[in-house]
Amino acid sequence: MQYHVDGELVAREDATVHVEDRGFRYGDAAFETCRAYGGEVFAWDRHLRRLENTCETLGMPEAVPADLALRVAETLDANDLADAYVRVSVTRGVQPGKLTPREEVDPTVVVQVKPLPRGGTDGEPVWDGHATVQTVKTRRVPSAAVPADAKTHNYLNGIMARLELRRVANEGYQPDEALLRDVDGNLQEGTTSNVFFVDDGTLHTPTTGELLPGITRELVLELAADESFPVETGRYDVDDLRDADEAFLTNTTWELRPIETVDGLQVGTGPVTALLQRLYRKRVEARCY
Amino acid sequence: MQYHVDGELVAREDATVHVEDRGFRYGDAAFETCRAYGGEVFAWDRHLRRLENTCETLGMPEAVPADLALRVAETLDANDLADAYVRVSVTRGVQPGKLTPREEVDPTVVVQVKPLPRGGTDGEPVWDGHATVQTVKTRRVPSAAVPADAKTHNYLNGIMARLELRRVANEGYQPDEALLRDVDGNLQEGTTSNVFFVDDGTLHTPTTGELLPGITRELVLELAADESFPVETGRYDVDDLRDADEAFLTNTTWELRPIETVDGLQVGTGPVTALLQRLYRKRVEARCY
Repeated sequence: MQYHVDGELVAREDATVHVEDRGFRYGDAAFETCRAYGGEVFAWDRHLRRLENTCETLGMPEAVPADLALRVAETLDANDLADAYVRVSVTRGVQPGKLTPREEVDPTVVVQVKPLPRGGTDGEPVWDGHATVQTVKTRRVPSAAVPADAKTHNYLNGIMARLELRRVANEGYQPDEALLRDVDGNLQEGTTSNVFFVDDGTLHTPTTGELLPGITRELVLELAADESFPVETGRYDVDDLRDADEAFLTNTTWELRPIETVDGLQVGTGPVTALLQRLYRKRVEARCY
Repeated sequence: MQYHVDGELVAREDATVHVEDRGFRYGDAAFETCRAYGGEVFAWDRHLRRLENTCETLGMPEAVPADLALRVAETLDANDLADAYVRVSVTRGVQPGKLTPREEVDPTVVVQVKPLPRGGTDGEPVWDGHATVQTVKTRRVPSAAVPADAKTHNYLNGIMARLELRRVANEGYQPDEALLRDVDGNLQEGTTSNVFFVDDGTLHTPTTGELLPGITRELVLELAADESFPVETGRYDVDDLRDADEAFLTNTTWELRPIETVDGLQVGTGPVTALLQRLYRKRVEARCY
């Protein structure tokens, strides 16, 4: 396996960053997780836009290299991968040991890939089964502390949430996604996913602003709008999700993943989720995004 | 210069971590900044205890290696450094690309050093002048999101705060520390420092719980108690600091650094700050902590 580091293809074992790189020192880096289907990165333009937006938010608007798509393509080619997971990171690079960032940035750019099952209408999901989710005590970092629309290497908030799942493991029940609320108790998102639910024939998902605007989330909302399906974004509490008729999580690798249980309570899938899954897979097949 | 990485002394330019290291990927790492005076790390036991506490909070209680003090000493020796800055990081190591951490941890341990001026009663401060601090819009990450007592590589909250200082720079006025409030507006701490002020003969500093319990902060509180000086920890707003008779910041490298201005308003130093500085320097001289 080869990765792309700082402009060069290198063997995976040699893919390193310096300990003075701010990406290591402070998690001072933007990233995107993408998925390639048949050699093509799905929704690349949207990922690129969000990556640029994160870098802008982090005060390094010029950090994303112009040839990033090429670097990704080279990495996929070098590993002979068509169906793959792709992770792109852009750090603020090596700077002297001061917290205040310098204006001039020499970013470190890393592209990592690994094989994933084929997607599309005949594809298979990357997940083992429907999601079992658990609401946790850990609250989402408010946007006033770190802007919610920035996708960064500061991921301890999600890790603290996932660590809580260790404690609820019992009798073979092991939740696989933690659901975060904001400090006021409003439902926000999973640690690596957005959440949707269907109630009385309307599709609901929490409003962005305090959560990461997921790209799969955005596509699902567009699919629903195309079908003139009733959609509402708003503020919800955990009971709204628990009492829903159907619920699912979205992210780039999972696509749409039905939620089987919330805090041990059955929710499950249904016709709306199935329809949206089918429409999403068609988009994947048609490379339409 | 040589650094200590993963159990080995290596040339600074070869001091790297793998891109799959969780320290890089997620900022999933604990760290301490220490200061060596005359070849001895000041307050090592306190730093070690806090590092272990951070690792415990991050769900990797056994991650700190038993020989960490030795690794630090070897690094100082290898670079022939007696008066130095020492940064120790312990990451959760390389793990497969899942957010949920594995129970078994093979940590990556990094020791970085650089020369600092001699401290103690005849020493010189590492800072250029008294601090100019600015309160910023960025709020401190609440403890409900990431525990405040964990000192980690997730440092974007402080970086966002420091980035705001770019905007207030004018007519030669460039604040050098950003002051964070919590989401409710209570004064908390600087991005790399704790804050103290003296008002009507009493020393004040915000209560821990929502802020990092600084080791210099702790020592200063002990020094004041030893002198039977009136001390109060509590909740304060920015005006309390602006209206104070004296104010200063503390951290391991700065020690006690007087605050010249808050949001452009003069505060300045005075007899209490000077006394505490003198007592602190005596402790450094006596290796007493």
